[in-house]
This record gives sequence, C-alpha cells and structure tokens, in this order.
Amino acid sequence: MISDPADLVSRSPHDLAVLAGEIRDLLIDKVSRSGGHLGPNLGAVELTIALHRVFRSPDDVLLFDTGHQAYVHKILTGRAADFDTLRQPGGLSGYPSRSESDHDVIENSHASTALSYADGLAKAFSLRDSHRRVVAVLGDGALTGGMCWEALNNIGAAPDRPVVVVLNDNGRSYAPTIGGIASHLATLRHERKGNFFEDMGLAYVGPVDGHDIPGLEQALRGAVRLNQPVVVHCLTRKGKGYPAAEQDEADRLHAVGPAGAARKPTWTSVFADEITALGAQRDDLVCITAAMAEPAGLAGFAARFPDRIFDVGIAEQHAVTSAAGLAIGGMHPVVAVYSTFLSRAVDQVLMDVALHRLPVTFVLDRAGVTGPDGPSHHGMWDSSILPVVPGLRLASPRDPARLRELLREAVDVHDGPTVVRYPKATAGPDIPAVRRTGHCDVLRETPAAQVLLVAVGPLAAACLEAADELAEHGVPVTVVDPRWIAPVDPSLLKLAGKHRLVVAVEDTTTPGALGGRIAQALAANGSDTCAATFALPPRFLPHASRAEILRAHGLDAAGITTTVLKRLEALS
Amino acid sequence: MISDPADLVSRSPHDLAVLAGEIRDLLIDKVSRSGGHLGPNLGAVELTIALHRVFRSPDDVLLFDTGHQAYVHKILTGRAADFDTLRQPGGLSGYPSRSESDHDVIENSHASTALSYADGLAKAFSLRDSHRRVVAVLGDGALTGGMCWEALNNIGAAPDRPVVVVLNDNGRSYAPTIGGIASHLATLRHERKGNFFEDMGLAYVGPVDGHDIPGLEQALRGAVRLNQPVVVHCLTRKGKGYPAAEQDEADRLHAVGPAGAARKPTWTSVFADEITALGAQRDDLVCITAAMAEPAGLAGFAARFPDRIFDVGIAEQHAVTSAAGLAIGGMHPVVAVYSTFLSRAVDQVLMDVALHRLPVTFVLDRAGVTGPDGPSHHGMWDSSILPVVPGLRLASPRDPARLRELLREAVDVHDGPTVVRYPKATAGPDIPAVRRTGHCDVLRETPAAQVLLVAVGPLAAACLEAADELAEHGVPVTVVDPRWIAPVDPSLLKLAGKHRLVVAVEDTTTPGALGGRIAQALAANGSDTCAATFALPPRFLPHASRAEILRAHGLDAAGITTTVLKRLEALS
Repeated sequence: MISDPADLVSRSPHDLAVLAGEIRDLLIDKVSRSGGHLGPNLGAVELTIALHRVFRSPDDVLLFDTGHQAYVHKILTGRAADFDTLRQPGGLSGYPSRSESDHDVIENSHASTALSYADGLAKAFSLRDSHRRVVAVLGDGALTGGMCWEALNNIGAAPDRPVVVVLNDNGRSYAPTIGGIASHLATLRHERKGNFFEDMGLAYVGPVDGHDIPGLEQALRGAVRLNQPVVVHCLTRKGKGYPAAEQDEADRLHAVGPAGAARKPTWTSVFADEITALGAQRDDLVCITAAMAEPAGLAGFAARFPDRIFDVGIAEQHAVTSAAGLAIGGMHPVVAVYSTFLSRAVDQVLMDVALHRLPVTFVLDRAGVTGPDGPSHHGMWDSSILPVVPGLRLASPRDPARLRELLREAVDVHDGPTVVRYPKATAGPDIPAVRRTGHCDVLRETPAAQVLLVAVGPLAAACLEAADELAEHGVPVTVVDPRWIAPVDPSLLKLAGKHRLVVAVEDTTTPGALGGRIAQALAANGSDTCAATFALPPRFLPHASRAEILRAHGLDAAGITTTVLKRLEALS
Repeated sequence: MISDPADLVSRSPHDLAVLAGEIRDLLIDKVSRSGGHLGPNLGAVELTIALHRVFRSPDDVLLFDTGHQAYVHKILTGRAADFDTLRQPGGLSGYPSRSESDHDVIENSHASTALSYADGLAKAFSLRDSHRRVVAVLGDGALTGGMCWEALNNIGAAPDRPVVVVLNDNGRSYAPTIGGIASHLATLRHERKGNFFEDMGLAYVGPVDGHDIPGLEQALRGAVRLNQPVVVHCLTRKGKGYPAAEQDEADRLHAVGPAGAARKPTWTSVFADEITALGAQRDDLVCITAAMAEPAGLAGFAARFPDRIFDVGIAEQHAVTSAAGLAIGGMHPVVAVYSTFLSRAVDQVLMDVALHRLPVTFVLDRAGVTGPDGPSHHGMWDSSILPVVPGLRLASPRDPARLRELLREAVDVHDGPTVVRYPKATAGPDIPAVRRTGHCDVLRETPAAQVLLVAVGPLAAACLEAADELAEHGVPVTVVDPRWIAPVDPSLLKLAGKHRLVVAVEDTTTPGALGGRIAQALAANGSDTCAATFALPPRFLPHASRAEILRAHGLDAAGITTTVLKRLEALS
C-alpha cells in the first residue's frame, strides 16, 4: 500500500492495476463494516490514482467537490490504516479534513462549491505569481447546482488562469442526474461537437474512460499543456468492481450504514407513509426533491404519484423558487430536503416564498445533531435562522403521531411558508399530552411548579425524564411541548409567565434559539420570568453519534437536571 | 395613453411608435423627479409593448426578473397616472406589486429568480391542464446568477412545458455583464451557431432588434409556435432614447436619486475612501463585488488597484466561496455587497468560510432600513441571521470614525469571517466615547443608572437623545455602543448585569436580534437583569424613507424614550 503519493510515480501499469484492486478490497471491507460512502469511491479509484501521478499534491491543490468521493485520496495520502476508525468518534472523517492531512484543502460536504474555491485559489496564485496548479474534481450531479454555473462563468473568462476541472461523470448523484445538462453530457459521450463548456470559454478534453489509468493520465497531461481553463470529461461507473453496487439501479450502496445496524422505524419512514397518504387525499399536493427522493422519504410518493414529484437536481435555490411558482399556480408544494442544505436557499425562502405569502411546506430531514457525517451535516442552523422569516411557521414534532399531525397542519396553511423538522434517528414511542393550550401540548403539569421545561421536538422524552429526576430533588416541574416553535405562541408565553425559570431544551445552535425568543417576548410583555436556552454551543461540532453529541452538550435527562439545578441555585 | 393592454392589439405600427415615444417622455419626466430605475426601463419600451400585444396578461403570466425593468409594464397596465407617487410612501412601488395590479405576479427584486418561478408555474399549469402561457423576461446580467442555470437545467429538460424566456440583452447589469456567458452572447449577436441554450435543451430564436416592435412580435409569435421551451434573444440599449443615459459608459442613470437630493458624505463614501487607503497599505487585500463595484463604494479601489478587484457577476454564492479560495491562497478578501443580497449566500458563509476559519471580511452596504426600494431591499436580516455563524464577528459602526476603525479591526482578523454593516444614509458627525471596556465604547455614563441603552451602530445618536429626554423624566441612563454586536462581548454582559433594564436598540428584525442574545447570555450567567430588544417588527416593511420607517417603529429618540418609560413601569 502507498503512504505518500510521490511513491506512485515510479509504479508500472501492472503495479497500478494491482494497487487499484487492493484499494477496492480495502474500501469494500472497511466501509461495509463502518458505514460510509461506498459507491462514489469505488468509481473514483483509477481517477484518483491518475490525479496523484499527474499532479503534485499538496503543492498542486486537489479539491474534491462534495468530499465523500475522497476516500481513495485519503488512502493514497497515508491514511489507509485509519479506515478502521472511519466516521467513529475521534476517528477518520468521512470527508476531507485539514486536521488529518495537508493534502486536504476543503472540508465542506455541500455540493457544487469546488469550482468557486478553485477560481479563488487561481486568482490568489496568479496575484502571487505562483505556478501551483488548481484541480477541482466534480461529479456530474454537482453540476446541476447553480454555484457551478457562477464559477464556470468566471473561470471561463480568464484564459490566463488555467484551472483544471475534472468532471467525474457517472450519470448520477444519489438519483440519476437530471436536466438539460445530463442530456448534453450523454450526447458528449458519443458525439464530438461544440459543447456547453466551450461556449463558456473553457477547453474540453474527452470523453475519457475513467477506469483506464494511462488514458486518464494522457488526458490530464494534455489538459495541463493547454495552459488555460479546461474540463476533462471522465466517464466512470459508480460502484465499479463491486457487482452488488454496480448492478443496483436504486444505488443503495451510494452510502451504507454500519454492518448490523438495526432497522427500526425512523422519522423519515413516518414522513414517507404520511406524505403518501396525504397525496392520495389532496391532488394539489406536489413534492420537490433536490436529487434525494429516496433518502428524504419520497420514494413511495414518487412511485404512487409520478406526475406530482419533481427532482430538480442538487439545486436547492431552484427547488424553493420553483415551489413558489407551483404555489402561485395553485398547488401546495412540499419541499423535502436535509436541514443543512436549506441554508443554500435562505434568500429564496425569505423573498420568493414568504414575501409573497405562498403556501409552501418545507420538510427538513436530518434536523439537529445528525451524527457520523460531521460538522457540515449537523442540521443545527435551521431553527435558529428560519424564525427571522416573517410569517413562517416552524414545527418540531416530539413523536410519530405529532409528525403526522403537524405535517397535516402545515399543508393546511394557505398564507405563507411552513416547516416541519425532524432528526436522522429512530422515532420513539408516542408521548401523550395532558392537555392542549393554544398550539402547545402540556406533557406534565405539576401544581406550584417553579420551573417550566419547554421541550422542543424529540427532546421531549429527555425532558420528561429530567422532570422525574428533578421531582426527586424536590423541584416541581411542568413540561410543555410548543409543537410550533416559531413564531412564539402567546399561550406558551402565558404559561411561561407563571414560572420562575423557563428553560427551552433545543437541538439547535444557541444564537437565535427559542429560549432567547421567549426571553425577548417576555421582556416585551414586562414579565420578570427568567427564560434560558439549553441548546448546542455556537460552534461546529465534529462527527460522533447523535446520542453521544447530545449527551456531551447536556441535552440528555442527566444534563438537563444538572443544569436546571445549577440555574435555580444561581437565581436564589 | 393606454390603460388596458388589450387596447394595444388594434394599434397601427405608427401609433405604437408614437406610444413608445410618449412612454419614454413620461419615464424621463417622472423618474428624473421621483428617483428610480431609469436606464433599464428606457431600454425595455418596445419589448414590453410587443410582449403585451403577443401575450394576454394576466391570463398569460409575464414575469419580470429583478422587477426594476417593469415600469413600462406598469404604464401599459393602467398605472401611468400614478407615476407622480413612484417610490413615495403609500405610492407606486418601484417593483411589481400584487396589491397594485393583477398583472403583477412576482414582487421580488433580487435577480435571477424569474426562470425558477416560470418553471414552477409551467409545472402547475401542466398538472392543471391549463393552456396559460408562461413568459419570463430576464436581463443578460441576471443570467450570471446560478439560479438561472438551475432553472434552465429543469426548463430545458421538459419539451412539453413551453416556457418562453425573453432575454433582454443590453450587455450590462449595473456594470457590463462579465464572464463566459457575456462573451458567448456577444458571439451570438453576430454569428448563428449552436449555442449554450440549445445545449441545455431550449430552442433559440434571435438575435432580434429589441427596439423593432414588428420584429419582436414576429420573433415572439414564432417562439410560441414552437410549443417548447425557448429563448428569444433580444438586443436592447439601456437608456435608449435619452442621450444622457445612452452615452454614459458609467451607467449612472441605471438608477437615479430624486431631483434636488443633497450630496452629503455617505457611509458608502467613507468606506470607499478607507478601503482604498487600506489597499495601499496591504497588498494582500483584494475586493470582490457582485456586479456592483460603483454603488458598493469600490470604484476608487478598482481604479487604483485594478488587479485586486474581481467582479464575479450577480453571483453572491460564488463571490463568497471564491473569496474563501482567495483566503486559502493567502489573500484577505473583502466582499462588498448589499446586506439584503448576502441572504443568497448564507450556506457559503457558514460552510465555505466559517467552517474553514478563513479570514474573509464582508462589508454590507444598505444594512437596516433602506428606504424607497421597499421590502426586498431593506437590510433587516443580516444581523439577525449572521450571529448563528460560529466564529463570525459582526460590527456595526456608529459614526465615520468607527467605520474606519472597525474596518481596520475586521481586516486584521486572521481566523474567521468578519462583517461590517452600515445603512444607505448620510453619515452623521463622530460621537466620542467616554471610555472603552472590552470591545465596547461607553458613550454616556450616569451614576446609579437603572437603564442601559445598548446603541447599535447609527442608532447611537437617537439613543443619546433619548438618554437626555429620560434624564429629564428623572431616569438616569447609561449608553453603550458594543461596536461588535456578535458574538456578545463579556464586557457588555458585565456592564448589563449592573442595570435593572437593558435595552438593545437595533435596526434589524426582532427574532435573533442582539437584545435576545444578551438575554440568553444573562440567563446563562444566572443574572436577573431584564434585557429587551427594540428593533423592527417581524414582518416585511413597505417602502418609505429611512427616517420615516425608523420613526414609525419607535426607533427614534421619542420612541425609545416612550418605550423605556413603559417598560420601567411594567417592571415596577
């Protein structure tokens, strides 16, 4: 096995073929056990070897878009032995990581960014008279994102900044790549003609077989010799060399769970069933996905209502604004997207949906702490950012029954955006309410309680456990689930005003969280109740399991109990 | 003059030419007086007439991207007489407005959205078996935004949804349109060949002279007959028919101020001078603009350091992530953008800059209440959203001296993003501090003050006035300018904890505002000080002057005084 990419240079073609086989064996063995992105990396073995033979990383900068295609790069840069710890707490990250290696430059796992980084790096190197080369490896799926267009528009206009764009074209993101660009790329596989990239001012090299190392090297060296912005179009096969992956049209081996992971009902599956049921009842309901119908729980809806699901590509901005158009046209769109990716479309939610008071429902999967995918996948921003959007209503269900109920309430709203968020997790048992006040469910009511726990979404179970523990400490506690966490419900404020200490327990970053908004509202009402936020600290959180991260930040029953006791002591 | 577009149908070519002349006279007369977007509308006179003759609005849907090119559309749909009230409080909006007319469908003035709305509307009409047509009018400048790419990728893939894209190509946004697409469009003006739009699956009609009504109609009718997605490429001249505008290469008549507006030093001009001075001192400083070098105060820097300014087009996402690339390459980028447009790049600020702890400085012009441009231009989101970004430091200068000082502090930060925000306004006189504590300037210190006014940025003057008035009411007040409003400075909390009532006075929307973050932090420290937010209400605000809007929401001295007295009464 290789520990320094410089060692690749002297290898014979035969050696390289053997190496490619060893890398595949290692990937299949390790990733099947630890869980992680299998398909994309199996498809990028030869390409990554060729890149490291033609370019001199880290002096030349290799940028991997989306990052989950960088396992082979990790193996070739000295991290093969660490694959036993892949995605484990403290172990190898599932994405490039600057703390792991100088060969890793960008860590972001959101798609379509690499060309913009590349343009900036090329500008910097040009200003510094540096001859370091900039290479961006991009999937065809990522090319459906608008950032790529913005970047190509800039890269193509600067013939003196020779960025090399390596298009790793396997015809898929999670789903098959959609749209005009996919058809165009398909044409280019067979027919040499003027193309989109040349229109934009880049040279075009290819198509080249992405599993033929000598052919790839020849194409890459040819591209370098052009000394101008260039696209090298490489055709690869996702899952290459692993028949189970190659032959699976549904691409279930794009990312795999750890071996032996239990298959319990998840929040996603509860949503999947309910949205399909809703689709049968309402013919104005349409669903939109940004290339993730299956992981976002829309596969069942898509199978049953193929005319009413739109995969727009990895294009969250267009997902949101085309939903606005659908709403103007009389439909009720449901945009199902991972929480962390909605940050891509904050302006569109604000201006295109909310300013127009359009009925669009956003369903945010992977909200809150997500787990082994690390800092760029934790959905810890949505419920702190979205409350600034005027007229937007944000729901966080505590259990499967509430997810079904809140989804129905959301799609019944006619005058503005609604959001329903839930985590990547097994859904717990239903938690009954004692009574409802306004939008809020009171889950436990204790006479003369000094403390009100405001339990946000799935943290309700931990809050009820904490209430038990606090009762044992002689602290009577009431627990309420606001169900709708933005805007702040007047009934919640009324209840809060009757307590000495109000604590919102939330799976989001602290600035902008519900506790602060309750405090603002109480102050505006002249109340002297003290409202606190128990949430995630305002920093990026590394990968670990959801339960471990929540515990580490005091968002389990023991943590809540301890912090409440401490706060009460400070108040007295 | 026409009051219903149906009246256009029977007009002779001669009548239409006369009408075009009358419309130009009206635009030049009224807009020169009221202020507004002159150049783009003078260029769109014939095009808008032709559109209303070929299509039947509102049954056919006409979508105007960016919206400031819709004045002629307003005139033709019965609003000519209202132009005396253009951009005045309660008067005609400077953008399409659904409350004004059924002919106005989208109100958003942020660029590059219309194609996405069009795709959504076409999908809805297709599901409803409706034959209403969808037409999107798009400037070539807007085509540099990634949303257009995402939309074209979807529109081009659906041959059965015949969206008509009318490309109003005048070669400019504010600045000349940049990039590969601009060169490509320039080629298409002279040479018929396969093109970018055809690559994406759309038909292409053109180029056509955008000031020749019969020619435009022929092209549009031909496009309709194709019954598939199509681009009609129209060549227009910005400012057409007004020599002062046509001949001004700097395009100063794109938007004009009201007649007689005084030319006092603005926040923008203070920034313009200081960034140029900084550029002379630091050769690692580079500036980035999204097609707005002149209005964002970078014209002087660009003239002096042409190698160190990058206009990336109307492409805020790329602006931010290419800045990240420049920072990785060793430069310190300053991204100068209107506050409201940074919402386009929240994900990029979070993931591409902050997660990588890169030194990128954002300078947000038009922050807070902006004025006559209305709801989509008020910069009332940035300081409520950006505090969620880990490691981001956000400054709001109270006076010109502080703008210079904070800009220098910002570009001296090496380990993460910094933001400096200021309004579209005349910059007031400098306001001296009594003393500094931590990052905070104490502006007035009153022994035994019960009330602490936390004066954010340019609201400091009103806070000091309010402090005078409150003193007359027997309420001693201390006034502090935190200078850096995110994260919350420990010195500010220490000072706050000594007061009974802390009030943050802010030019932003209430959820997420500083007052709530102070309350969160005080609660976390176990303090029983009550912290309140005086900010803008959580809704979209219509157009009016900045002073009028601030006054209407209690953010002037009288309003602050009244609200503080009321809160004190509630607390006692």
